[in-house]
Amino acid sequence: MLREIDLSRKITKDEYKKVMTDLELKLGTLQRRALGLGIPVVIVFEGWDAAGKGTQINKLLLSLDPRGFTVHPINAPNEEERLRPFLWRFWTKTPARGTIAIFDRSWYGRVLVGRVDKIVPKKIWSKAYDEIVSFERQLADDGNAILKFFLHISPKEQKKRFRKLAANRSTAWKVTKEDWKHHKQYDKYLAATEDALARTDTAFAPWTIVEAHDWRFATVKVFTAVADALERACAAAERAQRSSRKRKAPARRDDSASSILDGIDLAGAITKDEYVSSLKKYQRRMMELEHEVYLKRLPVIIVYEGSDAGGKGGNIKRLVQGMDPRGYQVIPIAAPNDIEKAHSYLWRFWMHIPKAGHIAIFDRSWYGRTLVERVEGFCSEEEWRRAYREINEMEAQLVGFGTVLVKFWLHIDQDTQLERFKARQRNPHKRWKITDEDWRNREKWDAYKLAIDEMLYRTSTPLAPWTVVEANCKWYARIKALKTVVQAIEKKL
Amino acid sequence: MLREIDLSRKITKDEYKKVMTDLELKLGTLQRRALGLGIPVVIVFEGWDAAGKGTQINKLLLSLDPRGFTVHPINAPNEEERLRPFLWRFWTKTPARGTIAIFDRSWYGRVLVGRVDKIVPKKIWSKAYDEIVSFERQLADDGNAILKFFLHISPKEQKKRFRKLAANRSTAWKVTKEDWKHHKQYDKYLAATEDALARTDTAFAPWTIVEAHDWRFATVKVFTAVADALERACAAAERAQRSSRKRKAPARRDDSASSILDGIDLAGAITKDEYVSSLKKYQRRMMELEHEVYLKRLPVIIVYEGSDAGGKGGNIKRLVQGMDPRGYQVIPIAAPNDIEKAHSYLWRFWMHIPKAGHIAIFDRSWYGRTLVERVEGFCSEEEWRRAYREINEMEAQLVGFGTVLVKFWLHIDQDTQLERFKARQRNPHKRWKITDEDWRNREKWDAYKLAIDEMLYRTSTPLAPWTVVEANCKWYARIKALKTVVQAIEKKL
Repeated sequence: MLREIDLSRKITKDEYKKVMTDLELKLGTLQRRALGLGIPVVIVFEGWDAAGKGTQINKLLLSLDPRGFTVHPINAPNEEERLRPFLWRFWTKTPARGTIAIFDRSWYGRVLVGRVDKIVPKKIWSKAYDEIVSFERQLADDGNAILKFFLHISPKEQKKRFRKLAANRSTAWKVTKEDWKHHKQYDKYLAATEDALARTDTAFAPWTIVEAHDWRFATVKVFTAVADALERACAAAERAQRSSRKRKAPARRDDSASSILDGIDLAGAITKDEYVSSLKKYQRRMMELEHEVYLKRLPVIIVYEGSDAGGKGGNIKRLVQGMDPRGYQVIPIAAPNDIEKAHSYLWRFWMHIPKAGHIAIFDRSWYGRTLVERVEGFCSEEEWRRAYREINEMEAQLVGFGTVLVKFWLHIDQDTQLERFKARQRNPHKRWKITDEDWRNREKWDAYKLAIDEMLYRTSTPLAPWTVVEANCKWYARIKALKTVVQAIEKKL
Repeated sequence: MLREIDLSRKITKDEYKKVMTDLELKLGTLQRRALGLGIPVVIVFEGWDAAGKGTQINKLLLSLDPRGFTVHPINAPNEEERLRPFLWRFWTKTPARGTIAIFDRSWYGRVLVGRVDKIVPKKIWSKAYDEIVSFERQLADDGNAILKFFLHISPKEQKKRFRKLAANRSTAWKVTKEDWKHHKQYDKYLAATEDALARTDTAFAPWTIVEAHDWRFATVKVFTAVADALERACAAAERAQRSSRKRKAPARRDDSASSILDGIDLAGAITKDEYVSSLKKYQRRMMELEHEVYLKRLPVIIVYEGSDAGGKGGNIKRLVQGMDPRGYQVIPIAAPNDIEKAHSYLWRFWMHIPKAGHIAIFDRSWYGRTLVERVEGFCSEEEWRRAYREINEMEAQLVGFGTVLVKFWLHIDQDTQLERFKARQRNPHKRWKITDEDWRNREKWDAYKLAIDEMLYRTSTPLAPWTVVEANCKWYARIKALKTVVQAIEKKL
């Protein structure tokens, strides 16, 4: 594909001036319109060394309102980044609603230089295509406008540019040995690039090849593409706003839903003696495992979900009691704050993904989307339905990176919950734990049951299965959770 | 001081149980009270290796609501951190209002291990005391409760503990060669520690020495100190709330203020030809300097403040026009968001401090405190008065780290401002730039003038002087700013 492209395309200085005045004004207007509509914009610049990425990015951002964008130059990952799944550093840089993120090189590094230079083994880079496509699709579904540019020059042109840079004292440092090595491997890179472009060119995140021999031609092409994409994104967002005002049909009730919860035997119980001795045993083991996890640089994520008053807090406490606080972190998830709301909903969880060698314990999690957000109508039906797949994709990436992922659903029955609510209300030191909201949620027991059932059903994958913990007996539940974590880590080690 | 402390203090198991039940409940209640009052809490744990910091931290956080705290284990700085002023990584970790930040080792590393192991030269660590005290004072002034614990054990006890750890297969890895080396240098560390404690023991951030031979004694002492400090902080916050309801006296007008602005000659102007040729010259030089800045790992910060319609945007544009976007970032400062408001006001600027080798251009800055926040009453008089010193301290730290710091005030007169406002209103493409607020601000010209004058007067230090740019003629102003930046960087290189 790339070889056939006519790189001789040019534009005259006069024509350039004429076109650009309009384009710059148009872009400014569109940026403000996109900001008003809260559209996040992702612009990726890839291309050959010396193809002029820096120049094009600078031209673009000089015509934008500086309050609205951030440029992210992407180099080889640093240690913080290498110790997390590959897309982590890109997720954390995705733009808030109404802002523009410009990537100077990007997640494509893994399938281009990482592949050709054999920095990343084939087993890993070949998997990256799926991860990239799902990443971009999730952003697009969340309303992001995504543009990807590949700045193309011929090997002859590249050589000419390298020589010119090398001849000038103040730019000579820009051309490194590495660059010349890459230049000699132009064909290899070309093959990898064609492969990457073909496998990641989607309707929601298309590639634009930019003929970059003539910088004026390139600039006009980039500006036109950005203006077109913003135009389309704005029109789509306005349509969506109009139609969402009309829609609002109630989510249909699905009475034929499978019932996992009904099948759970909550009778499991143990005596105090059994509890005390098992607790000691497993806590001691957890202490040892925490060290091994660190030494082997194993990432561990433990997710706690469960009924209100299901005993999450007490359970987590027993899990971490003997552990070293340097090795674990409990991440309590409440309603999202302003900044979190301005991003795709998985963003805030990506921000908390632990470094390899550390244990992250989520007290509630990304499953909020399929539970409280669904039942309370905080997100649209389309959004929570999409979430099952998005979550499964994220968890697959975590597990693919080597993470031990354990997910608990702490289940109690309605009577036990009522008892515990009442006990909390009686105890002056625990009264703050129970709010009107808890009582209101209790009234929605059936709606929650439906949501929980569907969640367990759709997100229990072979890679990331749920563990349902029968939690009417707190002692039983604590030991079961501890044992499950211990076994999951031991299995991986 | 440390040698004289009686390390044999103990507490019995029974007494411990009795005391701790109360202390834990008390702590829980106080945490919720502090949360309600929006008090940020900083708890620092320092102490000898194997003194039990991890154990004490875990005990503390098991009795806290996990939604309210974060533990920060502090190791040697990574590359991202080494390329920024020493306190950067601690500023970015300061707690939001109502939350608790627990530091497992801290900024004291620089004056303890960094000093004794000669990782940090004397010139640097001796300066760190002032930086630390001013850091802690700024946090305390902002309402933070600060606790600092030093866990103390004797060299004999340390040896005993190391041997015990080394004898157990699953903990042997914890005792490294480094640890034994430190053990042999106990006396050297002792001297450094005594020095550090004495020089940083302040009323707003006092040290608590914890006798840590008996862990029960240590736990009770830590819990008691935290409870006391929270109690006092809550009481102080409640008093402040009551008195602030009463106060609200108008800021007094200071008619004897020096007038810097009146003395500025705004007549400076150049012709278009001069402009075009100087612009080319300096832009080309900036391009070269940007590379040298990167190669020499020089940090550069350029601050733009100025009258509304003073031409900041156009000026910044000319500065960066020829530059490589990988080397600079424009940081536009608008009203703070939720997260930023929940922190000390300098926090959000610390978040944006550039890495050495990069150029950060602030379009408005921390001076907002002394300008818009003062004039509009967004902060108290005490707060903006305190800000002059806080800002001077921050800038001294930046410059001390080697940063080239340039601060511009772009000044125009009232007539020129009116002309530009009207011109913007006439131009359909620029109309969005002018809002009702601009017109309102214009009416407050005198109040702003007073605030600007005082700001220029109090924050023009030998290390970080202001450059007033006469900006009635845009061309003149752009060249003056460019030239100033070029010369400041050249001087440093």
